[in-house]
Amino acid sequence: MNMAHWESLTWPEIVAARDAVVIIPTGSVEQHGPHLPIGTDTLIAEGITRLLQESTARHLVVAPSLRYTYAKLNSAYPGTINLSGSTLTNMASDILNELFRQGFSRVMFVNGHLESIPFIMEGAEISLASRENGDRGGQAQPKVVIANWWEYISDEFIDEVFGDRWPGWEAEHAALTETSLMLHLWPDLVRETDTSPRDYQRFPYRILPWPEKARPASGVYADPRGATPEIGRRLAEIVVAGLDGTIQAEF
Amino acid sequence: MNMAHWESLTWPEIVAARDAVVIIPTGSVEQHGPHLPIGTDTLIAEGITRLLQESTARHLVVAPSLRYTYAKLNSAYPGTINLSGSTLTNMASDILNELFRQGFSRVMFVNGHLESIPFIMEGAEISLASRENGDRGGQAQPKVVIANWWEYISDEFIDEVFGDRWPGWEAEHAALTETSLMLHLWPDLVRETDTSPRDYQRFPYRILPWPEKARPASGVYADPRGATPEIGRRLAEIVVAGLDGTIQAEF
Amino acid sequence: MNMAHWESLTWPEIVAARDAVVIIPTGSVEQHGPHLPIGTDTLIAEGITRLLQESTARHLVVAPSLRYTYAKLNSAYPGTINLSGSTLTNMASDILNELFRQGFSRVMFVNGHLESIPFIMEGAEISLASRENGDRGGQAQPKVVIANWWEYISDEFIDEVFGDRWPGWEAEHAALTETSLMLHLWPDLVRETDTSPRDYQRFPYRILPWPEKARPASGVYADPRGATPEIGRRLAEIVVAGLDGTIQAEF
Amino acid sequence: MNMAHWESLTWPEIVAARDAVVIIPTGSVEQHGPHLPIGTDTLIAEGITRLLQESTARHLVVAPSLRYTYAKLNSAYPGTINLSGSTLTNMASDILNELFRQGFSRVMFVNGHLESIPFIMEGAEISLASRENGDRGGQAQPKVVIANWWEYISDEFIDEVFGDRWPGWEAEHAALTETSLMLHLWPDLVRETDTSPRDYQRFPYRILPWPEKARPASGVYADPRGATPEIGRRLAEIVVAGLDGTIQAEF
Amino acid sequence: MNMAHWESLTWPEIVAARDAVVIIPTGSVEQHGPHLPIGTDTLIAEGITRLLQESTARHLVVAPSLRYTYAKLNSAYPGTINLSGSTLTNMASDILNELFRQGFSRVMFVNGHLESIPFIMEGAEISLASRENGDRGGQAQPKVVIANWWEYISDEFIDEVFGDRWPGWEAEHAALTETSLMLHLWPDLVRETDTSPRDYQRFPYRILPWPEKARPASGVYADPRGATPEIGRRLAEIVVAGLDGTIQAEF
Amino acid sequence: MNMAHWESLTWPEIVAARDAVVIIPTGSVEQHGPHLPIGTDTLIAEGITRLLQESTARHLVVAPSLRYTYAKLNSAYPGTINLSGSTLTNMASDILNELFRQGFSRVMFVNGHLESIPFIMEGAEISLASRENGDRGGQAQPKVVIANWWEYISDEFIDEVFGDRWPGWEAEHAALTETSLMLHLWPDLVRETDTSPRDYQRFPYRILPWPEKARPASGVYADPRGATPEIGRRLAEIVVAGLDGTIQAEF
Repeated sequence: MNMAHWESLTWPEIVAARDAVVIIPTGSVEQHGPHLPIGTDTLIAEGITRLLQESTARHLVVAPSLRYTYAKLNSAYPGTINLSGSTLTNMASDILNELFRQGFSRVMFVNGHLESIPFIMEGAEISLASRENGDRGGQAQPKVVIANWWEYISDEFIDEVFGDRWPGWEAEHAALTETSLMLHLWPDLVRETDTSPRDYQRFPYRILPWPEKARPASGVYADPRGATPEIGRRLAEIVVAGLDGTIQAEF
Repeated sequence: MNMAHWESLTWPEIVAARDAVVIIPTGSVEQHGPHLPIGTDTLIAEGITRLLQESTARHLVVAPSLRYTYAKLNSAYPGTINLSGSTLTNMASDILNELFRQGFSRVMFVNGHLESIPFIMEGAEISLASRENGDRGGQAQPKVVIANWWEYISDEFIDEVFGDRWPGWEAEHAALTETSLMLHLWPDLVRETDTSPRDYQRFPYRILPWPEKARPASGVYADPRGATPEIGRRLAEIVVAGLDGTIQAEF
Repeated sequence: MNMAHWESLTWPEIVAARDAVVIIPTGSVEQHGPHLPIGTDTLIAEGITRLLQESTARHLVVAPSLRYTYAKLNSAYPGTINLSGSTLTNMASDILNELFRQGFSRVMFVNGHLESIPFIMEGAEISLASRENGDRGGQAQPKVVIANWWEYISDEFIDEVFGDRWPGWEAEHAALTETSLMLHLWPDLVRETDTSPRDYQRFPYRILPWPEKARPASGVYADPRGATPEIGRRLAEIVVAGLDGTIQAEF
Repeated sequence: MNMAHWESLTWPEIVAARDAVVIIPTGSVEQHGPHLPIGTDTLIAEGITRLLQESTARHLVVAPSLRYTYAKLNSAYPGTINLSGSTLTNMASDILNELFRQGFSRVMFVNGHLESIPFIMEGAEISLASRENGDRGGQAQPKVVIANWWEYISDEFIDEVFGDRWPGWEAEHAALTETSLMLHLWPDLVRETDTSPRDYQRFPYRILPWPEKARPASGVYADPRGATPEIGRRLAEIVVAGLDGTIQAEF
Repeated sequence: MNMAHWESLTWPEIVAARDAVVIIPTGSVEQHGPHLPIGTDTLIAEGITRLLQESTARHLVVAPSLRYTYAKLNSAYPGTINLSGSTLTNMASDILNELFRQGFSRVMFVNGHLESIPFIMEGAEISLASRENGDRGGQAQPKVVIANWWEYISDEFIDEVFGDRWPGWEAEHAALTETSLMLHLWPDLVRETDTSPRDYQRFPYRILPWPEKARPASGVYADPRGATPEIGRRLAEIVVAGLDGTIQAEF
Repeated sequence: MNMAHWESLTWPEIVAARDAVVIIPTGSVEQHGPHLPIGTDTLIAEGITRLLQESTARHLVVAPSLRYTYAKLNSAYPGTINLSGSTLTNMASDILNELFRQGFSRVMFVNGHLESIPFIMEGAEISLASRENGDRGGQAQPKVVIANWWEYISDEFIDEVFGDRWPGWEAEHAALTETSLMLHLWPDLVRETDTSPRDYQRFPYRILPWPEKARPASGVYADPRGATPEIGRRLAEIVVAGLDGTIQAEF
């Protein structure tokens, strides 16, 4: 029985956890090429959260993950399932409202997906603003951290590990870092398949509807070859240490 | 690697699954007394879905569960996390829109929680109505089934198994059937603890704010003593057979 | 001049009524077979409210009824008019906000229609939550009761009166109890017509779009033959006494 | 049994009425001084609708009135109950959607209250726009008329009847025309009371929050003295004839 | 550098302006016949605001204009761009929330377009209501004025200047007063073109969809011939003096 | 008279412009340090649009700018005015709906502000999705480009011009590029003031409420010293050429 998961606890056990940091792993239901599963972003967030729990000295409670989020750039590929922006905003706001209402004031989204950040932040803003005016009955002012795992990776590390093969973060979808992390965290879910071709056009602007020419046929935006479980292990270690530091600093 | 979970599949594998029935396990984040975990409703829905996958002849794909839903009646107990009704409606509508857009036309919610049904049905209505007017490009008219596990249990079975101990479905929260199902499906998550007292008042009407007198101090609305894994096994078998029959009849 | 109706009062008379219980009769615009009018649910709620006013010792003010509500299960029959769930929720919330703002703190929905309850309760939750945080300027914490007439009818009464003919509440649409109540409360609106056939299929699950096979051609879900004005009178008496007791207990 | 009211009809009778003009009487829940009831606007709309039904050669069906609408200018007086603008818009849109869906394509709001017009029109725009894109399955393009009774009264009539006493329509709230119409249509609901004082300030602009100085203490914006049942009868006749002409011209 | 425009100021300069009256010029993107530009309503509001700034003794800061608003009556003419009513309401509410949050408590919409008033007022109501309950931290209760330029023009002035040519304000779209004001304020934007024909039908009711017969082919609802820059100058003077008086009286 | 601005055109002139590319300059109302005005983002977008109009061979029509957008990261500084995310999304969606409805199918946002992009894209998605299902009556499928000026600036140019002084785009708020562009486009609006100190903490995560330590006291996130009009001229040239190329490629 994992006592650190909100869903596995009983309500009297929740009462005893009110000073804990609540972690909400956050991902997407989004295509990740022919070699990675559609749940990749959530699975990375959950895998890292598991490692964080094992290594931190702090009391964490892991709330149910946000799986359905916002991944419109890849909505043309089968398998991607999006919420609309406003639904995601409201979902984030509702969940935070409920946590704050019960006296939890330390919440951290451990996030694995770029596009949904603004909508989750908007939800957090709405929830926090509604607390500001009200009477909190002596409870602490709540605080929310949105932590994206890739922001903890230094340029130096990227240079050292990937060197010339590095395509830039903007193309890092189903590519070197995500594949390495999946090989470390969820190796059984990584397919051995040809991931070589990358055949699409980049633009210094956004076009809607997003045209076919802007999409690689494989769903892989940059070459994942060179990814290894060992790189994944090192990436995970950096992120976990970073998250632990964030918790120390902010909560 | 479980190929039957949407999140574990790759996008080319999703393409190959378009005629499958998509199952969405649906639960709640809601207190279930001192002996059952907060995720009980979702865990039962997921446990039953797992058994259904093992026994059915049909091709099923299991989408990520709806965990955060609507459980306002128990919102006074710590641990319960609610979406507002409109957020849940929009979430259901958005997800169905995405499935229908990709050509999936057979969707079944396997549901373990009563209160959120109207909001999920409203979401399904909205999504289906928006398909009616549009051009479906030759795709089949989508169909949605909302299947609540308890509706498959006959009065005869209840009489036979529980007899005088049966409190009526309306009080069956964290009680005989849910506890039995959890003992069968997720035995490690059931606490051995005193579940005896039931001390609250029932009303032939609803009062808001829901008063303290209407809530049992333990969160248990009817005595779960008498629940056994064997009863859970029989319940699960009936429900799984019922769901399989529903799939045959409707899809 | 009926001084007990909000709409018939002048504003200075409303000032004098601030301690009254505000009753909001709540129904639907929904088919009720070939023998009962589309307004049946509202008419029953209004008829019962009238009897309640005549017999109670308490000061009641009857606000305009909620007529347009939520009756999606019967939306395939002509005559049914639905609000969307969110419109109904907002309507309930807006009206309660206005009552609370003016210092009315005792509100009771006398309700004749099942399906709209969750959306009205959600509206009440929203309105009450917004009062919780604000400054009420010394006014009492408002309280809302949602009273469905059928919840006051005991199983014993049903057994005694209907015996073997009782189809269960779930099929009691345009059937024995509603027809009896209409014969007592609004006899001129009950048509003498053939109500015998009942020809539809029941399912232990919900299907959307709601299929034709699940709908009786007549709109009558269970045989109303055997309904009498006398049964209606007894039902009404029980409900009125129950509502009066609720008012004594809660307000 | 009044067969012309939607709520009094059975669903088979509604089927037979699909070519009828659907009338939706529309009013407000709004203070109307010490002499007129809070439901005045709705009561006038309903009274005129009743006379219209008696005199027209066309088939009319009267849908349930919109009673709760939008009357913010008078919200400082007890008794006024407002929906928010968006709720009213959605209510109008939902109801029209349902009527159009069932094949009714002729809808007329007979309206007695100024402030809610833009929100009802917005609702009609939304509903009509959603029909434009869809497939109407051979049904007629629906049409909506919003008819305000006072727009049928000519300046000549006002001059002849009221002469110097006429305060202008902008102050005609609970004043000469409304009081006359109520004396004709619902004489029992008009109180004999002192309506003389008019003591407030007019501005060539709107101020929010609407200040006390802009509100007459009595709720009467212009002197209703001089109102008579006979004037009410003549007003009603003009309006009824005008509405009948509108129906001939538009439907 | 115009220090009186919000957008031209730096943030430290805004700090120094907190006691100023914030003016929000408000117009529309709406056809104004073959001789006036589509931005006419906004341009008049901005032109008058400019004159007001030059002549008033008070400290004004001009916020960015509301250009996109609500002009549905003219939406059949190319060039008209509408927000939906709820978007406009939310835009007004959001902007006011931000101003109030920063301590600005004096806001005046200088408005040149009729149809959007109710939606802007609704936004102001929502924003003000949300301030009422909260803790304002010692800040003044905010006040909002919506000032429509045409409400400052007396009937006497209209009689004197236009006499028999006056069509009534209801037809004053792209006609005598607007054309005069544009000739005074933005003469370069007025086309010399034939504006003579007026060929449409008026109704004492609203029809949706708004029929072709109700629209003049030219977009001009009343004859603008007779408009002069001199009349525009006098109109502008009256309005500017009126607005200045409003500021003195209210802020 | 600038015939290229939507607001300056008459409606018959709009009819003649239906094949034009509609440009919507998009900015923010957001603090930009002690030396740049609050409207900087909009002013840059408008300045660049003006240069684009002067140099392109294509027919452009400039719609009214989106000034009020989404700038929450700087909302703690006075002067910043935000719409909520959903209001901005709806505003973008409404405007595009209106353009598409009138037959305009080429729309380009020339954008100067980062944070609002996701909300505008969501609006464009919503509007385009609603067109997909409907009947377009032979009109072209509309296309929307969102072009952010900074995406046209190559790393090589940055290296060459700024070298070691370059702080990275993420800190380029009110810094080297924006100040240079303002010095070129709107030199009168740039204050000569001390912009030296930069004293704040950067985090590899987001914290809400955004803490004081994360904000430079001046509002300047990176040193703008070294900005020159000449650099601004070169930046503008690159962006204008890039936008022109985008128009050629996409429309």
